[in-house]
Amino acid sequence: MPYRAPVREFRFLFDHVVGLDQVAATERFSETTPDLVDAILTEAGRMCEDVLAPLQRNGDTHPAVLENGVVRTSPGFADGYRAIAEGGWIGMSADPEHGGMGLPMTLTTAVNEMMSAACLSLQLNPLLSQGQIEALEHHASDEMKALYLPKLISGEWSGTMNLTEPQAGSDVGALRTKAEPNGDGTYAITGQKIYISWGDADFLPNVCHLVLARLPDGVPGTKGISLFMVPKYLPDENGEPGRANDLKVVSLEHKMGLHGSPTCVMEYEGATGWLVGEPHKGMAAMFTMMNNARLGVGVQGIGAAEGAYQHALAYALDRKQGKAPGTGSIVEHADVRRMLTGMKADVQAARAIALMCAVSTDMADATGEAEWAARAALLTPIVKAFGTDIGVEVSGEGVQVHGGMGFIEETGAAQYCRDVRVTAIYEGTNGIQAMDLVARKMADGGEAAYRLIDEIEKTAEACRATMPELAKPVWQAAEALRETTEWLVEQDMQDRFAGSVPYLRGFARVLGGHIHLLSAKAEGGTGPRAALAEYYIKRLLPEHSANLAHARQGAEGLYALSVEDLVA
Amino acid sequence: MPYRAPVREFRFLFDHVVGLDQVAATERFSETTPDLVDAILTEAGRMCEDVLAPLQRNGDTHPAVLENGVVRTSPGFADGYRAIAEGGWIGMSADPEHGGMGLPMTLTTAVNEMMSAACLSLQLNPLLSQGQIEALEHHASDEMKALYLPKLISGEWSGTMNLTEPQAGSDVGALRTKAEPNGDGTYAITGQKIYISWGDADFLPNVCHLVLARLPDGVPGTKGISLFMVPKYLPDENGEPGRANDLKVVSLEHKMGLHGSPTCVMEYEGATGWLVGEPHKGMAAMFTMMNNARLGVGVQGIGAAEGAYQHALAYALDRKQGKAPGTGSIVEHADVRRMLTGMKADVQAARAIALMCAVSTDMADATGEAEWAARAALLTPIVKAFGTDIGVEVSGEGVQVHGGMGFIEETGAAQYCRDVRVTAIYEGTNGIQAMDLVARKMADGGEAAYRLIDEIEKTAEACRATMPELAKPVWQAAEALRETTEWLVEQDMQDRFAGSVPYLRGFARVLGGHIHLLSAKAEGGTGPRAALAEYYIKRLLPEHSANLAHARQGAEGLYALSVEDLVA
Repeated sequence: MPYRAPVREFRFLFDHVVGLDQVAATERFSETTPDLVDAILTEAGRMCEDVLAPLQRNGDTHPAVLENGVVRTSPGFADGYRAIAEGGWIGMSADPEHGGMGLPMTLTTAVNEMMSAACLSLQLNPLLSQGQIEALEHHASDEMKALYLPKLISGEWSGTMNLTEPQAGSDVGALRTKAEPNGDGTYAITGQKIYISWGDADFLPNVCHLVLARLPDGVPGTKGISLFMVPKYLPDENGEPGRANDLKVVSLEHKMGLHGSPTCVMEYEGATGWLVGEPHKGMAAMFTMMNNARLGVGVQGIGAAEGAYQHALAYALDRKQGKAPGTGSIVEHADVRRMLTGMKADVQAARAIALMCAVSTDMADATGEAEWAARAALLTPIVKAFGTDIGVEVSGEGVQVHGGMGFIEETGAAQYCRDVRVTAIYEGTNGIQAMDLVARKMADGGEAAYRLIDEIEKTAEACRATMPELAKPVWQAAEALRETTEWLVEQDMQDRFAGSVPYLRGFARVLGGHIHLLSAKAEGGTGPRAALAEYYIKRLLPEHSANLAHARQGAEGLYALSVEDLVA
Repeated sequence: MPYRAPVREFRFLFDHVVGLDQVAATERFSETTPDLVDAILTEAGRMCEDVLAPLQRNGDTHPAVLENGVVRTSPGFADGYRAIAEGGWIGMSADPEHGGMGLPMTLTTAVNEMMSAACLSLQLNPLLSQGQIEALEHHASDEMKALYLPKLISGEWSGTMNLTEPQAGSDVGALRTKAEPNGDGTYAITGQKIYISWGDADFLPNVCHLVLARLPDGVPGTKGISLFMVPKYLPDENGEPGRANDLKVVSLEHKMGLHGSPTCVMEYEGATGWLVGEPHKGMAAMFTMMNNARLGVGVQGIGAAEGAYQHALAYALDRKQGKAPGTGSIVEHADVRRMLTGMKADVQAARAIALMCAVSTDMADATGEAEWAARAALLTPIVKAFGTDIGVEVSGEGVQVHGGMGFIEETGAAQYCRDVRVTAIYEGTNGIQAMDLVARKMADGGEAAYRLIDEIEKTAEACRATMPELAKPVWQAAEALRETTEWLVEQDMQDRFAGSVPYLRGFARVLGGHIHLLSAKAEGGTGPRAALAEYYIKRLLPEHSANLAHARQGAEGLYALSVEDLVA
């Protein structure tokens, strides 16, 4: 089941749908020439196809294990990691001052998607390092940057995020890990952290943990939390791994999927840490990392969906069954065709939304314009939740395309399903994303949302003459989204939250209509992209109306059923 | 995580929604008194809670294994099976002449749901025996009935279905297994069968395989297939297990879930078999078994959904996180409440549809009226596909309610997800069910569907004065279903198939509106059932309109994207 990097799709979306040209026109990203983009996509794509994709099953069949306190990784993962590091793919968007390539996040997003599709459990490692790099770039002292960034960017060391504790999951503010000043500028970190992805790896000489903890004078809740750098080995005077720090991996979780990624319970026993940023401002620093990571996790879902799609398509092309016309394979059967076409249409929609978010991030970075930053902020929870939901749904359809073989582990179809499931949970559950969308991201009274809706309607109007059958439903869907948004911003939080998940879903569905319409328009309304757009707009887009109807119901009816009634 | 049998729900649905009183009013089922129903539900419920539910995790953590040709089952499964058999639950609806209780399928359906919720992988064993019992009752000779039925009904022996071969899955007609006359009235069966659930078990003295095979004069395709009884041990003159037959379990599949259920590759090497029914009429006999089994598998999905719902609710009630009002647990958070209420509403809808189907089967059996048989036939694919889709969706939400813990296997949330996944595939994939609905079940020009839609509209009209907010959307939904059905029956098969899955889903959604409306009506439009109905009708029912819009698109746009375009 070879993976083929969808290089052509990325180029098309860059050029015709998400407007990478705007990014390339900025001074900051002026090196983003078409040739460079081609070279990046082709090279990264080749590595994903040749080096990473063959490791995908290894992670599942030979999970990471904890042996005498060290995490032994799956066969081949060390080589795969080295290929990613040596290709420069970890620090693609990092500051060139510390060894990064300074490329747009849009390109990183494309490369991350390909790596996720090829081997999700391994790709999670560099994704976490990318988040840590961004957090350090924004919040660390120059000295800390100089020490850690070059090693993280080159992939010599990797980075983790330590937020969760048994009693502090979605409610990070409940954390109990303590940080006590040692008197020499360092801090003693004590506490237990759970769900630490890639908390250790036998192929890494050092692992850098960013740990949220509370200083002695930290108030309860999120406002008393600070961020610390706590490396596995304390850097010596040359910046090389020295004495072992007082921390350890206590155990690995036994998970539904993503077995190649060691999920660690970490114990910090007075471990030496260095403050990152200001005291008590840890959450702000963590949010830098999380916004990046949320886009990245959404893209994991999309990558897994693309991988599952290709895998299912290959099976369908090969499998003969019944009296199928044409190729004689099951791909000719209407319902198999429906599943595959729907999978492709959804992957493309989610991918374009993620790239649109990345372009906004790049434009915000390059221009400093608040409108771009607001768009990136608005789109981030949508990318995270919709991208990972599509990952779950498309990989589920992938199993279904396989029929009975889908349930048999050897085919690998089930692995996509099991692996991707956690992406809808980690980095803030998709429910948390939806709450973020309707609360923080609508704190502007819906301004950023309306600007986007205006654009969608403009696209639809531009297509009304040439593609009326596609333009009209997209325009109407945008209008329905506007009305629901207008209703939403007038409500109190509880009423917003009650329908936040269906609202986010409806928003994403409408955005999908937008990008498919742009895609059809780019090819003059005919050909395969127009056919895919028509499929999406006529068969999948109608879902938005059910989503938005649900979103507008508010909290009252939701709580009409009491807890006792749920139990009864 | 204790399972609590939803006895009260069954009683309510029997009395107020699906009309078990009609069944009890027939001569055939006149013994179905309220007291008997209570006794059955209570006793079966207690066994599921006390004996079966504690085995659920064992099946997953200690899968069945093949050792020296014998399947060693999961710890405790032998005792669990014995409890099911001794309770008489296998042959509840079987003919009393051979030891059955002759009770309505409606009661069997309720008991099967509870057993599925408690321990799906074990429950699959008696489910298959039930199918075999029905096939033999309808098609076997008196001699064969006398020999096998008492042992299958008592659970002393179990039964399997052998359809699939590597090249013959959904296309059963492609099978190659041969049956050659031995000259003594028996046949030599030779071939390989795959996906044979419970093909062997160390706690059973005999396993009876119903095997589809082709006689020497059997034409290619489904019309040349015959059905054979091929026991693991040939019955001796006393009907006890004698000489071992020439068949064996070659291997067990390594599956995504349902690990407690051994999925066997069976090799028949000239095994002795007896013809069941007429030569070349094996498919008809198998369909008897499959219709029963399809209702049964739909109910497996519903049971798994109920189990996952209870499990998630228990977690949510226990888990403290954030500033929740009331109980302080996450069940107070709007989005968690949304998930749980939606899960409950969907389980109840699917359960009632399954019981409606079972009542129709019972009425058809008791009265011989064609309209009841047509209703049962119409509802069967809907129960199978919607019930198992709800199983997949609700168990997925169950994982989500758990947050990070949902991905950790120890909690058991993921197991519901993994176990139930196959129910959407086996006994005919849900795509095959949808094709059955729009083809065979609409061969009457939609008559059976229209009769049901008429009833829904009648219910809605009866509620229009007292519950206008609920009655109106249900009436409109029924009307939309009617219009789509009218469109559908005018189309050729390819156009029907292109939207068959969304059509089935839309149909089920509308039926769900019907049963929730009936449920609200039964309690005078107030109280928890009315609140649940309102939740379903306002927040979940709107989905039907997207489903039906999709269903009406036909095949043209679907094939506009060529196979090459899918690959590109």
